[in-house]
Amino acid sequence: MSETKGLEGVTAGNTSICTVGKEGDDLKYRGYSIIDLSNHALFEEVAYLLLHKKLPTQAELDSFLEKLHSVRGLSQSTQTALKALPKDAHPMDVLRTGVSILGCEYPETDDNTWEVAHRLLANLPEMVLTWHAHHNPVDSTSSNETSIAGCFLEKLLGKPVLDEDRASMNCSLILYAEHGFNASTFACRVTTATLSDMYSAVCSGIGTLKGPLHGGANEKAMEMIKQFTSVDQAVAFINDALEKKIKIMGFGHRVYKIKDPRSDFMKNYTKRLAERLGDNMYFDISVAIEKTMKEKKGMFPNVDFYAAAFYYYLGIPIPLYTPIFAISRVSGWIAHIFEQRENNRLIRPKAEYVGPESQTFIPISERN
Amino acid sequence: MSETKGLEGVTAGNTSICTVGKEGDDLKYRGYSIIDLSNHALFEEVAYLLLHKKLPTQAELDSFLEKLHSVRGLSQSTQTALKALPKDAHPMDVLRTGVSILGCEYPETDDNTWEVAHRLLANLPEMVLTWHAHHNPVDSTSSNETSIAGCFLEKLLGKPVLDEDRASMNCSLILYAEHGFNASTFACRVTTATLSDMYSAVCSGIGTLKGPLHGGANEKAMEMIKQFTSVDQAVAFINDALEKKIKIMGFGHRVYKIKDPRSDFMKNYTKRLAERLGDNMYFDISVAIEKTMKEKKGMFPNVDFYAAAFYYYLGIPIPLYTPIFAISRVSGWIAHIFEQRENNRLIRPKAEYVGPESQTFIPISERN
Repeated sequence: MSETKGLEGVTAGNTSICTVGKEGDDLKYRGYSIIDLSNHALFEEVAYLLLHKKLPTQAELDSFLEKLHSVRGLSQSTQTALKALPKDAHPMDVLRTGVSILGCEYPETDDNTWEVAHRLLANLPEMVLTWHAHHNPVDSTSSNETSIAGCFLEKLLGKPVLDEDRASMNCSLILYAEHGFNASTFACRVTTATLSDMYSAVCSGIGTLKGPLHGGANEKAMEMIKQFTSVDQAVAFINDALEKKIKIMGFGHRVYKIKDPRSDFMKNYTKRLAERLGDNMYFDISVAIEKTMKEKKGMFPNVDFYAAAFYYYLGIPIPLYTPIFAISRVSGWIAHIFEQRENNRLIRPKAEYVGPESQTFIPISERN
Repeated sequence: MSETKGLEGVTAGNTSICTVGKEGDDLKYRGYSIIDLSNHALFEEVAYLLLHKKLPTQAELDSFLEKLHSVRGLSQSTQTALKALPKDAHPMDVLRTGVSILGCEYPETDDNTWEVAHRLLANLPEMVLTWHAHHNPVDSTSSNETSIAGCFLEKLLGKPVLDEDRASMNCSLILYAEHGFNASTFACRVTTATLSDMYSAVCSGIGTLKGPLHGGANEKAMEMIKQFTSVDQAVAFINDALEKKIKIMGFGHRVYKIKDPRSDFMKNYTKRLAERLGDNMYFDISVAIEKTMKEKKGMFPNVDFYAAAFYYYLGIPIPLYTPIFAISRVSGWIAHIFEQRENNRLIRPKAEYVGPESQTFIPISERN
C-alpha cells in the first residue's frame, strides 16, 4: 500500500465548529463569517461563541468576562517557577510549562471543566507576561483594561493602549481563534480522545503550534522581512530563494487553494498601522514579497504573513508572536476538546510496516 | 460522507520500528521478537535498538549507558519547581511539567538532538522520583544501580533491589517500550510534523498516555482489583459490571484481535512474584477476572491488566504505574520522532463540517 502522508485529504472526523466554505476561501465560526466577527465582535465574544455554540447576549458576555476575571492570576509558586525559566527560553516552551504547572495545581475533575476552560483562557497571557516582564521589566505591569487584547498590550508594553491598537489586536485574536483540524487542534483531539484532561490537551496544542510549519511561521516571516531595508532588496532575496527552492514562510496553506480569507484583514490592519506610525517600510516590503510570490509561484500569503509586520508595528517582540497565536487559539482548542468528548473514540490510526523481516536475536557477547 | 471515527483502520504513514506481525498476535521491535528481547536483553539495549535501528555490541551498549549516566540528574531549579508541585498532583502531570521545564533549560538545537534524546531517557525517572521522594521520604534516595530498572526501584523504595525484581522490572520496561502508532506515539508524530522540538513532542506523548483509554488503564485495573478480597467477589463484580455494560479496564485492544502477546509475559512474572512473596490473592483474582472476561465476552487481557498486580506486588504506588509506562515508552516515542523527521510531512487531516449553515450576525445590543 502506498503511504498516506500527513493524512492529507483524509477526513478524521466531524466538526460543527468551523468551515472554510464550499469554495474553500470563506471562513465561518459556528456559521458566522469572520468578516462580521472581526468587524464587530470582541475576542471574548468569539471565544464564547466557540465554546457555547451561540453568540452571547450582553448579560451573558458580561458574566463570561466576570468569570475570566475571577480566575485571572497565577499562584505565587507558579510565578516563581516561570521566573526561574531562562531568559532565552522559547516563549512557547514557557507557555507549555505554565499550562502544565496549572494542571498540577488546579487539576480538571468531572465537576470543574468550565472553570478549567476559563482558567486557561484567562491565564495564558499571564504566563507569557509574568516570564517576559521578569526578564524585561517595564514601568507598570498592572492594567485596568477589561479585554484580553487590551490587557495583554498594556501589561506587555507598560503603557496605556490606544483604542486603534486595542481594536486591531482584538481583530488579530479573532482571526487566529479557530481553524478546523489544523495540526495543533488535531493534537489536542488526539490527547483528549484517550480521556486525558484539558491541560494535557492544551500542552499538546502549544507544543504542536510551536513548529515553524504551523504557528512558528509568523515569527519566521518577520525574521525574514526585517533583514531588508528596501523593497528591491526583498524582491531580490525572494527571487534568489525561489531559485534555490528555499521555503518562504507565510505562504500557501494545506486547506486554502485560492486565498487565505484572513490575510486581507491582516494586510488592511497592517497598512493602517504603518500609515499611522508614518513608517511604511515593512508594509511595503511585505506587499512586494506578496506580489513576487504571486507572480513567480502563484502563491498567496496566509494569515501569518501580514501578522508578522502587524505585530512588529504594534511593538511586540518577535518571539511573542506565536504565543499570541496560542492565547487566541486556545479558545478553538477548548471548543474541539468539548466536541471530541461529546462523541469520543480513541484516535489510533494504523501504520504500514516497512521495516526488517524477522531477525535472529544474537546474545550481546556474540555480536560484532 | 459518513464519519471516520478515531482513524480506525486508516493508515497514517509508514514505520520500520515495530510490527504486530501478519496474524496480529506477534510483536517485533525492528524485526526482533519481544520474546527474545524480554528474555535476554537489558531495557537500555532495547532503547538502543529502537533509536539506532540495530542491537548494540557490548562496547556500544557501554558507551550508551555512559552517555545516559553523564546527563542523568536535574538542575537545582528544576528540582525546586518539581518539589513545589502539590503532593496530590497526578504524577503524569508532574512528569509532563518536568519535561517541559527541561525543554526550557536545555532546548533542542540542530546539533544536540542525540543529547536531548539521552537526557529524556535518563531523566524521566529522576523527575518522578524527585517529586515523589519529596512528599514520601525514604531512607536513601541514592543508588549504585546502573540500569534504569534497578535504579528506579532502588531510589523509589529506598532499599537494595533483589535480582529477580530488577529483572522483572526490566522486562516490563521492554514490553512497554514501543507499539506502533498508538495514541501517544501518534501525538508525538503530530507535534513533530510541524517541525517542533523533541521535548514538545514528548510532552504531547505524556499528556496523551495519561488518559484512561491508554496508559491510565493499568492504574484503573489495579484500582478495580484491589477492591476485592476474594476470587468470588471479583467474579461477581465482573458479571454485574458486564450486565450494566461498564467498561472493564485492561481488556481488549484496537490492534490485537486474538491476544496481546505481552500479556502472557506479564502474567508469568506476576505469578512468580506472587509465589515468592507467598501472597497469591491479587494474582488469583486477576486470573479469575481474565477467565470471566474470556467466557462472558470473549475478551483477552492486554499488557496493562497483569501489569497492575505486577507493579503492586513490587511495592510501587498505583499512581506511578502510568509514569513507569512513560519512562519506558519514551524510547519508542523518540524512535518515532526520528522516523517522522526522516520523511516529514505536516499531519493535518480534513474534517467533515456538520455545523450550522450561514448565520446572520446580529449586533450584541440587539441579541436576546
